[in-house]
Amino acid sequence: MSGPKDEALKRRAEKVIPNGMYGHQTVRNLPEGYPQFFVRAEGARLWDADGREFVDFMCAYGPNLFGYRNETIDAAYVAQLSEIDAATGPSPLIVDLAEAFVQQIGHADWAMFCKNGTDATSMALMTARAHAGKRKIVFAKGAYHGSAPWGTPAPAGTVEDDRAHFMYCAYNDARSLEAACAEAGDDLAGVFAAPFKHDVLVAQEAPDPAYARRARELCDAKDALLVVDDIRAGFRMSRDCSWAELGVAPDLSCWGKAIANGHPISALVGSDRARTAAGEIFATGSFWFQAAPMAASLATLKLIKETDYLERAIALGERLRAGLAEAASRRGVRLEQTGPPQTPLIMVCDEKGDLDPKAGYAFGTELAARGVYFHPWHNMFISAAMTEADIDHAVSAADDAMAAIRETAAAG
Amino acid sequence: MSGPKDEALKRRAEKVIPNGMYGHQTVRNLPEGYPQFFVRAEGARLWDADGREFVDFMCAYGPNLFGYRNETIDAAYVAQLSEIDAATGPSPLIVDLAEAFVQQIGHADWAMFCKNGTDATSMALMTARAHAGKRKIVFAKGAYHGSAPWGTPAPAGTVEDDRAHFMYCAYNDARSLEAACAEAGDDLAGVFAAPFKHDVLVAQEAPDPAYARRARELCDAKDALLVVDDIRAGFRMSRDCSWAELGVAPDLSCWGKAIANGHPISALVGSDRARTAAGEIFATGSFWFQAAPMAASLATLKLIKETDYLERAIALGERLRAGLAEAASRRGVRLEQTGPPQTPLIMVCDEKGDLDPKAGYAFGTELAARGVYFHPWHNMFISAAMTEADIDHAVSAADDAMAAIRETAAAG
Repeated sequence: MSGPKDEALKRRAEKVIPNGMYGHQTVRNLPEGYPQFFVRAEGARLWDADGREFVDFMCAYGPNLFGYRNETIDAAYVAQLSEIDAATGPSPLIVDLAEAFVQQIGHADWAMFCKNGTDATSMALMTARAHAGKRKIVFAKGAYHGSAPWGTPAPAGTVEDDRAHFMYCAYNDARSLEAACAEAGDDLAGVFAAPFKHDVLVAQEAPDPAYARRARELCDAKDALLVVDDIRAGFRMSRDCSWAELGVAPDLSCWGKAIANGHPISALVGSDRARTAAGEIFATGSFWFQAAPMAASLATLKLIKETDYLERAIALGERLRAGLAEAASRRGVRLEQTGPPQTPLIMVCDEKGDLDPKAGYAFGTELAARGVYFHPWHNMFISAAMTEADIDHAVSAADDAMAAIRETAAAG
Repeated sequence: MSGPKDEALKRRAEKVIPNGMYGHQTVRNLPEGYPQFFVRAEGARLWDADGREFVDFMCAYGPNLFGYRNETIDAAYVAQLSEIDAATGPSPLIVDLAEAFVQQIGHADWAMFCKNGTDATSMALMTARAHAGKRKIVFAKGAYHGSAPWGTPAPAGTVEDDRAHFMYCAYNDARSLEAACAEAGDDLAGVFAAPFKHDVLVAQEAPDPAYARRARELCDAKDALLVVDDIRAGFRMSRDCSWAELGVAPDLSCWGKAIANGHPISALVGSDRARTAAGEIFATGSFWFQAAPMAASLATLKLIKETDYLERAIALGERLRAGLAEAASRRGVRLEQTGPPQTPLIMVCDEKGDLDPKAGYAFGTELAARGVYFHPWHNMFISAAMTEADIDHAVSAADDAMAAIRETAAAG
């Protein structure tokens, strides 16, 4: 049970919002005891409507990179609001920001800005198809690339035609990628790839460099465009496109979530090879040319370049991973910890090593009761605003939570 | 030619943005002399990068309802930023705002919030299809309902399948609507309608109440959902859904642009009939649950309820229409002024009454040189921040502009 104010808000919400809440932030698919509504955020912390404080490991599902209400970034936003924001044309900041992205992202020669991550992936899809007038797109099965009718993981309200000309391979399986591209024949427009395997509910996997290189070769051989969807992981793996770490340059990469530390902006960036096609598609939105989120993104890029935020997030993630592993071993709980330490997925397994969703949910409930907001089946995020004390608090809470779930299991 | 700073920015932009700019705010399809970049906005005015001042009749293509940088609305945004904005869950404001929309919009029993107008129309499309598991959607030919692959007016990068199961009728033609619905047979999922005909490049038309009523009857008879796309015109025709003025209640209406006076938020609202379907679709976005735009939207709704903004905009639009008509008659220029006075479309015709795009562009250039930002082929918007003096300034500039284009025509 969450607090009384949260429960009262949920009851009001049920009347005026379908199911009381929608999208990725609904707590209907989360363990008992997770609050739905928050009233305050600061750094790595959230306060719910009942005043309960949480160390937040979800970072708004990605946007929070430098801490909630980062002073420098928010000041840039507010200062820009007092000049011009959404207007009849963009401000010069769109040029500054496009130049900053081109400077920051190795493969980028140009940038276009939008609002949702899905806007950027939809534009990538259209650009790939416009590039040589071909239709087939290869995705890794199970990967999420946006909530538009063509991308949504749930079929309700979509038609089969929305996914016409889509082919699927297995992530990190170069043979399966080759087979999908072969099936596309002369009609291959593009290959989409997540920077690493970060699907929900299954172990995360680092990208196999051979897979990434093969994707590049196949796109080159077939005059198709290679797209890296860096919306969730961008600037969390690298200060460049995540696949730059593998030495593989895509034609297009998609950015969103953290690029303005929570202010609303996303981006499609591309190489000169994709420029003509990107200039042919029609894509636009009422708020895409807002100046204030661009000011915030410029401030965020400056912090990305000038601070050790990435090394700190990795070190904190490693501290969390080691601490949890030690506690789990001591408590006799099997934790599956996968993915980069700064975007960890942590799930509870049974004695045979199979996922134990019930135990995972119980673990989440116990952690939430101790002021730690973990996610039982979606990768989490470490922000640069976290401290070693926050990590140690989470490890200690997890230690107690594991003791509690072991006790319940023994009693049951 | 726009000013030297604008030209220098355009040259920088050409290197790092495909075609130097994209979407509805590119000036490539506008008359010579229109600046691409603006550095300051206030009330009804914009200043370009060269310091030139304009009375702006485009209102950011719709978002500006109460004037740029409205103090009350922006203060609500900034105050909310200092509590919580994008986070791991929504703030209670999402409940307050859904309640406010339900209270404000006659047909609404619930609301869902998103970012782009296209998000709301895509969700309406999915909800209509989820409602009874049917597929066909009827649109009026030439209407714009968003820039997603299914909606974009330009085919580049889309495939035919994106528009599978779409049927088309002529706006305001009940017989043609009946024929399209009949063609859909048992597979009719929904009918989309603009609140009035506001397509680009052609005369605007008020909705025929018989057409609107027939759309309602056909949807009822076929268990399909009626969708009014009020993104561009919402709260500019009425303080309710635009079709409330006709006595026709849709199942779904789509809102965006002006609902937070330029801050980024859009909405799908619906009746109880559509609630189950709306609760079945998966639609979400990284920034959809931001609290600050919701605070701004609450402040905007308050002004909508408590001020005479709508009556003022209509009166100012009528003053503009009358003033232009008088000047055009005196100058011997044929102006086609269509649509509601508060969202006027103003195009120049030749002596036979056919559109004269060249004269329309020349008129735009002359107006821009006199500090008035008109659009030659897209409807414009009157904001509540405009004054009678602004209108009179525009009429006087138009009078001079018409004299100039008549002189050029006579000389040519």
